[in-house]
Amino acid sequence: MKKITLVEVGPRDGFQNVEEYIPREIKMIIIDGLIEAGVRRLQLTSFVSPKAVPQMKDAHELVRATIAEHADQDLELFALVPNLYGAKAAADAGLREVSTVISVSERHNLANVKQTVAQSLQGLAAIRRELPELAVTLDLATTFSCPFAGETPIEDVLSLMKAGSELGIRRFSLCDTIGTATPGQVRDTVKAVRAEFPEVLLDIHIHDTRNMGTACTLAAVESGITNVQAALGGLGGCPFAPGASGNVATEDVVYMLERMGYETCIDFARLLAVSKYQKTVVQGNYSGHQVNIGEDCAG
Amino acid sequence: MKKITLVEVGPRDGFQNVEEYIPREIKMIIIDGLIEAGVRRLQLTSFVSPKAVPQMKDAHELVRATIAEHADQDLELFALVPNLYGAKAAADAGLREVSTVISVSERHNLANVKQTVAQSLQGLAAIRRELPELAVTLDLATTFSCPFAGETPIEDVLSLMKAGSELGIRRFSLCDTIGTATPGQVRDTVKAVRAEFPEVLLDIHIHDTRNMGTACTLAAVESGITNVQAALGGLGGCPFAPGASGNVATEDVVYMLERMGYETCIDFARLLAVSKYQKTVVQGNYSGHQVNIGEDCAG
Repeated sequence: MKKITLVEVGPRDGFQNVEEYIPREIKMIIIDGLIEAGVRRLQLTSFVSPKAVPQMKDAHELVRATIAEHADQDLELFALVPNLYGAKAAADAGLREVSTVISVSERHNLANVKQTVAQSLQGLAAIRRELPELAVTLDLATTFSCPFAGETPIEDVLSLMKAGSELGIRRFSLCDTIGTATPGQVRDTVKAVRAEFPEVLLDIHIHDTRNMGTACTLAAVESGITNVQAALGGLGGCPFAPGASGNVATEDVVYMLERMGYETCIDFARLLAVSKYQKTVVQGNYSGHQVNIGEDCAG
Repeated sequence: MKKITLVEVGPRDGFQNVEEYIPREIKMIIIDGLIEAGVRRLQLTSFVSPKAVPQMKDAHELVRATIAEHADQDLELFALVPNLYGAKAAADAGLREVSTVISVSERHNLANVKQTVAQSLQGLAAIRRELPELAVTLDLATTFSCPFAGETPIEDVLSLMKAGSELGIRRFSLCDTIGTATPGQVRDTVKAVRAEFPEVLLDIHIHDTRNMGTACTLAAVESGITNVQAALGGLGGCPFAPGASGNVATEDVVYMLERMGYETCIDFARLLAVSKYQKTVVQGNYSGHQVNIGEDCAG
């Protein structure tokens, strides 16, 4: 049995796409439910401008409360931060780990954070310098394709990873930002990345825009990736990509992997219960499938 | 470039799940659009009791009109038939090929057609005897799992294929009737079937109930299957499986396979246009994803 770590990103990548503010108590019921279901690694929130992303305005309180509530458990809790300011806020709230995003595609990075990749790397260097104890995962946005530049050359992924490695980054997330990767592309990229950087930890982060979320996730796992990011209910979407779906759904990924002999250590029934609860209290663009099978089916 | 034949089953497996009768003119606009987009093999309808499935009451007229309209094209048109009566009706309408269903699972066959598998095989024998010129594909329902009996033993699939082969069947469709197969199960089954029956033609027929439609389809193709069934828009679902999704969507399959280097000979832009048209005129349970990507995406 090969062990897979499910990295739940719903409370960040899912919730950030929900327009109406979700009360912190509701967020925490969902987070607690995920932890009770067996999730051990969670991206809790992001430390960003409350003006830009009002949904995340409670980041500090949510992080502190979650840490306090689960102090006796062996959890890996982290948050997304866009810069040193956010990283300091995350550390101040008690986190020992963050993730930060740089796009492999220069054009996407400019559009996304109004910085060149070189400028973003300087920001990353500042985080490393000012907060050397803080573990940082580098999320490689547009690892597979860019809405402006098309398919991403693998050399560009390797090049950004090299720059990150030189800043001491030991964990990278390969992000299918717009959800257009194919399983073949995922295999090729993961293979090349693992060959060049055999020592780094790798996550896969897939969006389900073109219904290939589980196929791409499986391709990554079968290419050797053991950290799979997913969002409960497949919640998410992208405000700038009409028709785009959210992240691959946690329950779909867990169901597939467990039935294929992988070990996620997640209690599927509990996970599904949290997903159903979430649907009743959080309005959003869900792409995860219900896992109900009726009594009979003719077709 | 490996060639894959896309077998469009939407006009049967998609439309049969639509409650409101779709006027024949609308059905034919969609069928014509599919053919113009490059689809060469289509399951047009089913010859069943109009009382049981009112949506298919126009089977005779639809088949005759489609054959007449596309007489100059090299198409493989077929219909689903439940028995000799239906097969005769299909032949009478001008078809030279039909498909018929027997469940691998005895319990599902009883629930589905109120016959034992042995009785269904007698029905198949009658079709072969009375209409020896009619090509028959045998759809193996519940190839992967049964809502009553759970996971289907591969030996049961091989056993039903042996019985079908003895009746002269040379083409079989491996049907994931309730949409719960995993890619691993698909690989194992296809491998065993191809080893035992290297000479038969095989189709894969996947439902997307648990979001593994493209993953399972890819698993089948990479295990050597070259005939992929799908329904435009992922239309479908199962009246007896609440929450179940429809077939894997034609546009999702074509998109994935073409981008992975397979040749489907389908014009994707035209296919998408037909899918969008269908959505405007046919109310149904669509599982195919829109293939729109916006200008920017931050996540």
